[in-house]
Amino acid sequence: MNYLGIGVSPGNVPVYHGNNLKVIDRRVRVTELVLRCIIFGLAILGAILIGTDKQAKVIFSIEKIAKFTDMKALVFLVIANGLAAAYSLVQVLRCILSMIRGTVLFNKPLAWAIFSGDQLMAYLTLTAVAAAAQSAVFAKLGQTELQWMKICNMYGKFCNQVGEGIASSLIVSLSMIVLSAISAFSLFRLYGNSKGKGNAM
Amino acid sequence: MNYLGIGVSPGNVPVYHGNNLKVIDRRVRVTELVLRCIIFGLAILGAILIGTDKQAKVIFSIEKIAKFTDMKALVFLVIANGLAAAYSLVQVLRCILSMIRGTVLFNKPLAWAIFSGDQLMAYLTLTAVAAAAQSAVFAKLGQTELQWMKICNMYGKFCNQVGEGIASSLIVSLSMIVLSAISAFSLFRLYGNSKGKGNAM
Repeated sequence: MNYLGIGVSPGNVPVYHGNNLKVIDRRVRVTELVLRCIIFGLAILGAILIGTDKQAKVIFSIEKIAKFTDMKALVFLVIANGLAAAYSLVQVLRCILSMIRGTVLFNKPLAWAIFSGDQLMAYLTLTAVAAAAQSAVFAKLGQTELQWMKICNMYGKFCNQVGEGIASSLIVSLSMIVLSAISAFSLFRLYGNSKGKGNAM
Repeated sequence: MNYLGIGVSPGNVPVYHGNNLKVIDRRVRVTELVLRCIIFGLAILGAILIGTDKQAKVIFSIEKIAKFTDMKALVFLVIANGLAAAYSLVQVLRCILSMIRGTVLFNKPLAWAIFSGDQLMAYLTLTAVAAAAQSAVFAKLGQTELQWMKICNMYGKFCNQVGEGIASSLIVSLSMIVLSAISAFSLFRLYGNSKGKGNAM
């Protein structure tokens, strides 16, 4: 099965429509690999930053410990980051494998699987970041109308580390958004005006 | 400029690759129009449900009024719904116009604009729903570890109406997600293995 010459070893790349598309293909593949590596690294960083965050405070001789499990949104974010890291690791291996073997790993079912996975991950990580960011805003600013007091003036170090974790996760989710556009490109151009050529299943 | 026969009047539809793709095209266009109408209606409904929500309560002879502006996430959701409704109205008009005129409105810059708009709206509405849902969870369940008390036992009617607004907005954002996949399909298949045919700018 052939897919616009992607993954075909350099010695026998068929000429489809000039060098222009081949250059685009190469750039798309490199961008994909770089983004997946960034996501893998930052998702782990985000999960560690939030998951290991802890701060003890003595209030009226009672020790209180702030930890990420106090806020469900942070637990959700750690899980989302973990899933994004595991998913990206698999995808990085797939990218490298297809580069090393120089063979074509691309077909419609695989393209659909990658597209669906990327979409799911993009929406999942964005949802987790939005929920965690909303919680962080409450923690930082409080909500006086509802008598929810700000807690970051008490647990400053804890809040800062959560903030770093959320920032890291935000980059993960933005990268996933770019990736999901790339995988949409890779999938849907298989449905181009090809007159049945190269549209193999 | 021609785009796989989409929008060409029925009398002179060119035969590209059988009836199969033409049927898919027609279904895609109808699905798109229906989804955009649903989004338009539900986004307005969601904005009205949340924007008009208000409940007065007398606590220790002091009247307190709960309104959506007490929570920034709800303000954000109303704005996101308003944007989604306005955007969908424009898109519905475009869809209808292209159907009535029977001419092809499709070209790469327009496809890119629709793709970008749909993506932006999908991520925007999903972010707004996630933030509002997180706030609603705090309001409904409280967060005892942080001494944030639940407020929905005091403002039951207010909370229910917010819940309905969030549910309506969730359907909006899920529909936007499906639409953004459709517009990705419409855009990226223009980059298919077309050997220069039908790839007009």
